[in-house]
Amino acid sequence: MPLSEFSLIDRYFTGHSRHRSDVALGIGDDCALLDPPLGQQLAVTLDTLIADVHFFANADPEGIGHKALAVNLSDLAAMGALPAWATLALTLPKIDEDWLAQFCRGLFALAEDRGVELVGGDTTHGPTTVITIQAMGFVPPGEALRRDGAKPGDVIYVTGTPGDAGLALAAAFGQATVAPEYRADVQDRLERPQPRIAQGLALRGVASAAIDVSDGLAQDLGHILERSGVGARLTVDRLPLSPALTASLKRDAARRMALTGGDDYELCFTVPSKKTTRLEKLAVAWRCRCTRIGVIEAEPGLRLVRANGSTFSLERLGYNHFG
Amino acid sequence: MPLSEFSLIDRYFTGHSRHRSDVALGIGDDCALLDPPLGQQLAVTLDTLIADVHFFANADPEGIGHKALAVNLSDLAAMGALPAWATLALTLPKIDEDWLAQFCRGLFALAEDRGVELVGGDTTHGPTTVITIQAMGFVPPGEALRRDGAKPGDVIYVTGTPGDAGLALAAAFGQATVAPEYRADVQDRLERPQPRIAQGLALRGVASAAIDVSDGLAQDLGHILERSGVGARLTVDRLPLSPALTASLKRDAARRMALTGGDDYELCFTVPSKKTTRLEKLAVAWRCRCTRIGVIEAEPGLRLVRANGSTFSLERLGYNHFG
Repeated sequence: MPLSEFSLIDRYFTGHSRHRSDVALGIGDDCALLDPPLGQQLAVTLDTLIADVHFFANADPEGIGHKALAVNLSDLAAMGALPAWATLALTLPKIDEDWLAQFCRGLFALAEDRGVELVGGDTTHGPTTVITIQAMGFVPPGEALRRDGAKPGDVIYVTGTPGDAGLALAAAFGQATVAPEYRADVQDRLERPQPRIAQGLALRGVASAAIDVSDGLAQDLGHILERSGVGARLTVDRLPLSPALTASLKRDAARRMALTGGDDYELCFTVPSKKTTRLEKLAVAWRCRCTRIGVIEAEPGLRLVRANGSTFSLERLGYNHFG
Repeated sequence: MPLSEFSLIDRYFTGHSRHRSDVALGIGDDCALLDPPLGQQLAVTLDTLIADVHFFANADPEGIGHKALAVNLSDLAAMGALPAWATLALTLPKIDEDWLAQFCRGLFALAEDRGVELVGGDTTHGPTTVITIQAMGFVPPGEALRRDGAKPGDVIYVTGTPGDAGLALAAAFGQATVAPEYRADVQDRLERPQPRIAQGLALRGVASAAIDVSDGLAQDLGHILERSGVGARLTVDRLPLSPALTASLKRDAARRMALTGGDDYELCFTVPSKKTTRLEKLAVAWRCRCTRIGVIEAEPGLRLVRANGSTFSLERLGYNHFG
């Protein structure tokens, strides 16, 4: 006999994650009851992952659980928010207890590691696996890293080495070959993105704008430019290319992958020039690279240039779900 | 050329709902930024609706938009919370602008009417329509209507006339025939449930436990009983049957529908006997019925009895998504 919806929820989604003192009532009633901290704003984000659209249906379920939460924590990081609570809407075509147990292991390991408590859930039966997580966190008023604060002269940075997840995805579709010694690395970058939470917190009061790179660096930077009413000049020679990327693709193809590959969940942010020294000192302590890649300009549009000043061209900026 | 994901979101989901002063930053950044009120708890709930599972794919899109929000506001109502904010995760098989416009009309009409602002969204492309809304509201600490507070001797009430939505659903599946003069009424009850927000707010400090009736009165009352560690005796002659129900079904079948039909979104709640006079005075002002249907008892289990004391039997308690 199949488990009922309710025992399913009971078995897999209660009691796993840590119990935060600001959760007055967790899963199991009509609503969760939460105590927001005094003097903080609540940052709220949500992302949906769909089988065979955002992940391969036959991928490692532990990785899917990790990623479903990670992409949301990445949005909190991009806002400079400290993660606190999450809810999960999980639609499944069938009950597969092994899959669920592994999915939960990935989800709750990351939640535990980042101090997040799952406070609500809805498990439903539908034709395909659809996972929506909403994450909530805190940020002091006026300190959030919005998209609309970039000013001409601000320096543009990116964390990590964008393009690795895009390379893994291209390889999965047979559009690229990953150098054998890097296959596990890039697969891990695709399946287990690490939300840059510490970096986002450090950027409070330093960055003028920030976004996380989910749909490709060029496209996501474009959102900052649009919302801020500015443009940018990006020097492609400065792009921090991983050894995996340079070992697997020719130099210009590697740059294109770093600019357009999705799923990296790095932070792209801008810093006023008078704060760049402070930023670069902070970044020494980070467990990821932090690279200056360009500069904000008054003229709208994104200009990609080589070190010699010639134009670098892209056919597309990034991923479009309905494109 | 299809609309991109982003212009879709821009066109349909920004600028529609009212602008609350506690929304510092709405849709369009990595996160929304919200200002929770001082001294209140945050009540959080989410519900997923799936095409041809929770609604007919070809149903009136305006009704689907209404219902997707209504079911969540109903959860806030059942907690005694004042609705404030909502987010929407919308997965669509294709872009149908007519459908979207109508869906939004239903969603935003209810949001506007109940003072709710949509503060976040994620629109994705998937094989079927999946709608997850998360609603957030406020309730003073200690005043939330939890499921676990019912005590022996408490009186059980239900708002409205449960069973009408179940009748419409049964008719849609050819399992019942609705008396012609009531067809529009019961269809409206199924497609446009009215969350009992004012009633939930009035029940603060009065009700000892509450739940909204989404999966059938008997099953949902069962959750109160289980969480409170009590049982109940319910007198089926007292069930408030609508004229539509009694005109369409024989008396006992109507009672069964009132007890097991889902999708009503009425409130079922318990009130300590010393507060029932106060409750019944409050309820005079309500725009819906409020009916005493039974009593909480120490002995676990739900006992359904007729006025003459004989047992009333049910084959199933309600709806089970994986049953």
